[in-house]
Amino acid sequence: MKEKVLAFLKEKDGYCSGEEISHKIGVTRAAIWKAIKKLQADGYEIESSTKKGYKLLLAPNIVTSSEVKEHLRTECLGQMIHYEKEIDSTNNKAKELAREGAEEGLLVVADKQTNGKGRLGRNWESPEGTGIWMSLILRPKILPQYASQITLVAGLCMCETLKAMTGLEASIKWPNDVVINGKKICGILTEMSAEMEGVNYIILGIGVNVNMTVFPEELPYASSLALEGGMEYSRKAIIDDFLERFEKEYNSYKQTPNLAGIKERYEQNCITLHKKVKLIKNAEEIIAEAIGITTDGALKVRYEDDTIEDIVSGEVSVRGLYGYV
Amino acid sequence: MKEKVLAFLKEKDGYCSGEEISHKIGVTRAAIWKAIKKLQADGYEIESSTKKGYKLLLAPNIVTSSEVKEHLRTECLGQMIHYEKEIDSTNNKAKELAREGAEEGLLVVADKQTNGKGRLGRNWESPEGTGIWMSLILRPKILPQYASQITLVAGLCMCETLKAMTGLEASIKWPNDVVINGKKICGILTEMSAEMEGVNYIILGIGVNVNMTVFPEELPYASSLALEGGMEYSRKAIIDDFLERFEKEYNSYKQTPNLAGIKERYEQNCITLHKKVKLIKNAEEIIAEAIGITTDGALKVRYEDDTIEDIVSGEVSVRGLYGYV
Repeated sequence: MKEKVLAFLKEKDGYCSGEEISHKIGVTRAAIWKAIKKLQADGYEIESSTKKGYKLLLAPNIVTSSEVKEHLRTECLGQMIHYEKEIDSTNNKAKELAREGAEEGLLVVADKQTNGKGRLGRNWESPEGTGIWMSLILRPKILPQYASQITLVAGLCMCETLKAMTGLEASIKWPNDVVINGKKICGILTEMSAEMEGVNYIILGIGVNVNMTVFPEELPYASSLALEGGMEYSRKAIIDDFLERFEKEYNSYKQTPNLAGIKERYEQNCITLHKKVKLIKNAEEIIAEAIGITTDGALKVRYEDDTIEDIVSGEVSVRGLYGYV
Repeated sequence: MKEKVLAFLKEKDGYCSGEEISHKIGVTRAAIWKAIKKLQADGYEIESSTKKGYKLLLAPNIVTSSEVKEHLRTECLGQMIHYEKEIDSTNNKAKELAREGAEEGLLVVADKQTNGKGRLGRNWESPEGTGIWMSLILRPKILPQYASQITLVAGLCMCETLKAMTGLEASIKWPNDVVINGKKICGILTEMSAEMEGVNYIILGIGVNVNMTVFPEELPYASSLALEGGMEYSRKAIIDDFLERFEKEYNSYKQTPNLAGIKERYEQNCITLHKKVKLIKNAEEIIAEAIGITTDGALKVRYEDDTIEDIVSGEVSVRGLYGYV
C-alpha cells in the first residue's frame, strides 16, 4: 500500500490530489493519508496542501527494497530484497534465509547492524543510516576451494563502483578491502556452507562506510566516502551500480571459474602491488615485494633472496611498510 | 539412573540382588526394578531371579552413548555423544548443534536415519539397528580449501578399522569410499561452514553398512560387512576403533595440514591406483591410468598420450572399467 502510493508520487512528478490517488489505487482517501504519514515517518519529504494535494519533494537516502530496486538493472542479483531497519548482522540473516532455501540473488540490507561482523571474528562498526550493510546469497556450482576467488571478483567490482560513483581514487588492498587515501572504506566477509563436491551457498557480506563523519579512535585506518570526498553519497545508487557490475563478472566467473578474465583489471587497481609489503604470519614478519596475483587469487611475492612464492589469502596478513597499505 | 544400574551390572559380572544395587546407588528397590525393565526394553538381556537377583547376560549390539563410551580411549573425539534412536539425518543434527556452539569432538549417533544423506544430494539407506550412522563435529584451524583432505584421512582410518575388526580385505576407492570385494561398505559425507580465512566447523558424516542382509535392487554396488564376512559385527567396537585411529591422525594433520604423513599408507590401501579407470565429467568419459595421490589429496592420472594430470575430488567421478571400482 505504502509502496503503491510512493510509486504513484514518483511517477507523477508534481502535485496530485488524494482523490486522484485514491481513485487510481482503489482505496479510501483516509487510507492514502495513512500511507503518506508512514512515508513521511520513513524520511520522505512530502508536501501536503489542501488545495493542490500531495507532492514528493525529496526521497531520503535510504536503502529500503523499493528504493534499491527502483533503478536496478540486473537479471537476478538484488531482484529479491530482504530489508530490515535494524538487524544483528546481515550475514547471519542471509545464512538463516539460505538454510531455509532462499534462492541465489537474494539481498539482505539493513540500515543498522547491532552486531556487524568483520573478518577473523572481528566486530564491524555499522551505525544507523550511514553505510551500506548488505549480504548477497549466491549459489554457484563450484568447488569450495574456489569460493575465495568470488570475494576477489566482488572486491574489484566494488572498487570500480566507488571510483565511478565518487571520482575518488579507490584501490584494492589484496585480497578484497577497498581503500581510499590509504584508509579502509569497504570490507567483505564471505561465508559459505559446502560439501566437498560443491558449494551449497555463499554469503557475500559487504560493508561500505558511506556517510559517517566520525570513527572510533581505535580504528585509525578506517574512513568513509563522505570524509574522503567531502560530500554525501547515495547509498542505493552505490548498491545498484555494484550489483550490476558484479552480476556481469559473476556470470562470466561461473562459466570459467578462475580469475584470468579479470586479472589485468584487478592488478591495475591493486594498491598492494609493485612495492614492498610486510607479510605477517603467526606474529612473524617478513618483507617481500608484491609482484602480481595468480589466476587462483593468490598474491605472488618475491623475497629478498629472489625466491618467489604464491601467498594464499587467509594464511598471511599483508600490510604496508608504514601503515595499512 | 538406568546408566548407573547398567554400569553396576556390567561391573559385577554375576548375580546381584535388588537390595545390593539399591543400597549401592541409594534408591528404592522399586526404582531399580523400573530401570531393569527399561534396560530390557533397550535390548539388554537381564536374567531376574527372586532368589539370586539380577544378572546381565548379553548387552545388545547398540550404539547408545554409554555403550560407545564404555571402552573408548580417546582424548576428545566421541567423549561427548548425542545419541538418538531415530533421526532425519545425523549430519543435519550435527550442523544444528555446531551452529549452537557444540565443541569439537561431539559425536551424533543414530540407530536409524529417516532421511540419511549421501554425497551430491543422494539418499543414503540407513535402516534401523544394522549400520553405523554417525557425524563428528570438528573445528580445525585450517583454511576451507584444505577441508577435503580431512575426508581422505577419515577414509583411510575407516579402511584400517574395518580391516582390523573383520579381517576382510577392505580398500579405499578414491577419494573416500571404503569397499570390500568391489562393493561399497562405507561412505563419507563431509560438510562445512567456513569463512575465507578459516573453517568454522566441519561435519564428518560417516555411514557404515554393518549388519544388513539385504539391499534394494537399485544399489547393486552396495554391501555390508555381514554379507561379505558371513557374521554379525559389533557396531560400537567399530566406532571406538575408528575414533581412536582417527583422533591420532587428525591431531597430526592439524600440526601439518597436508597428506604427506599418510600418503604411503593411503596409496597402499587405495584400490583405485595402478589400473585403468574411467574419469567421468559432465557425461563425458575418458580412460586414464591412476598412478598416485598428491599430498593435497588429488588423484594423479596418466592419459593415453602420456600427459599427467592431478584430478581434484568433486570435479570428476572415477569408476572402474567394468564396475564400481
